[in-house]
Amino acid sequence: MESNIYTTFDKIKDRQAKEIYLKQRAKVIWLTGLSGSGKTTLASLLEKRLFELNYFCQILDGDNVRSGINKNLRFTNEDRMENIRRIAEVSKLFMNCGIILICAFISPTKKMREMAKEIIGEDNFLEIFVDTPLEICEQRDPKGLYKKARSGEIPNFTGISAPFEVPDNPFIVAENSNPDINETVRKILLKIVPEIRFDPTADL
Amino acid sequence: MESNIYTTFDKIKDRQAKEIYLKQRAKVIWLTGLSGSGKTTLASLLEKRLFELNYFCQILDGDNVRSGINKNLRFTNEDRMENIRRIAEVSKLFMNCGIILICAFISPTKKMREMAKEIIGEDNFLEIFVDTPLEICEQRDPKGLYKKARSGEIPNFTGISAPFEVPDNPFIVAENSNPDINETVRKILLKIVPEIRFDPTADL
Repeated sequence: MESNIYTTFDKIKDRQAKEIYLKQRAKVIWLTGLSGSGKTTLASLLEKRLFELNYFCQILDGDNVRSGINKNLRFTNEDRMENIRRIAEVSKLFMNCGIILICAFISPTKKMREMAKEIIGEDNFLEIFVDTPLEICEQRDPKGLYKKARSGEIPNFTGISAPFEVPDNPFIVAENSNPDINETVRKILLKIVPEIRFDPTADL
Repeated sequence: MESNIYTTFDKIKDRQAKEIYLKQRAKVIWLTGLSGSGKTTLASLLEKRLFELNYFCQILDGDNVRSGINKNLRFTNEDRMENIRRIAEVSKLFMNCGIILICAFISPTKKMREMAKEIIGEDNFLEIFVDTPLEICEQRDPKGLYKKARSGEIPNFTGISAPFEVPDNPFIVAENSNPDINETVRKILLKIVPEIRFDPTADL
């Protein structure tokens, strides 16, 4: 009897059953970019628009991750990698539950994003580079972090005293200095929706 | 504009919107009990029956947690607490996404389960004590762990060389030595469904 249960509910079928229930294909949309580049704003708008189009999404960002699962991590290099590793593993759990993830993290190095892609699986990982020039991010400075980084109060700050490694071949480059963010969101949706659209005949 | 986004999509509304989409109330069903007590089998059957009743669930158990998010934890006391802490935080993320969690972990001490309850929130935490006598668990011994524990190969094994603290006031006591597991599942469903059933007028 137990073996029956496991045969019926193995992991692949479980994900498929849930994608069918939600009528969508689960993917991880990974927003990478400088602090102040607009990742969280874009993530919120994307989730809102996708929800209106009947797609069921979950956002992971600093707000719900650093205060919870990753609250015991600091900002050492080792802990930054562990931060991204846990985020990728949580994303994978959600994805295996049929849910579309929108992850918004600076994730400044190629090594970090490669690790995330490896955990999540290349076919499931849709990388969006939020390409806002440093000058604009620094002008916006929504949390006052650039000011603190320039004064030396925050060390190893991405873009100021630590590098941001531009992705080589992201799925989308979102030029987010455009004042009309809705146009940026529209362009992203046009590329994302074909990836998450449910095709009931795909496995026939 | 940003403030508008945050007002519309604050966390409580986000959870509500998702519960409405899924037509259910999100809860965490927490199965605690000895190794071999039948937690994973019960969790699988519960998920299957709840899915047939159109409830959208996710199982967290050793299989998908120890191989992923918690793969860098060992079996020291500190790491066992961290294991449960991360599981509770992941459960909370799913719950805030409107999803019913079924967690199956030995979680042998009151301190562990109290921590999980505190993270998840008392109203959201439905504790099920899977009450299978040690002798039956040891007879079943599905993974051969009791044999290893008796021979001393595994130290600090719950029930043999480490205590299992019976919950004081669990939501359900599931006596799982009954050969008819479907009857056990039926009894659990009768108590769980009123907790997860969606009432569209609840917040009017």
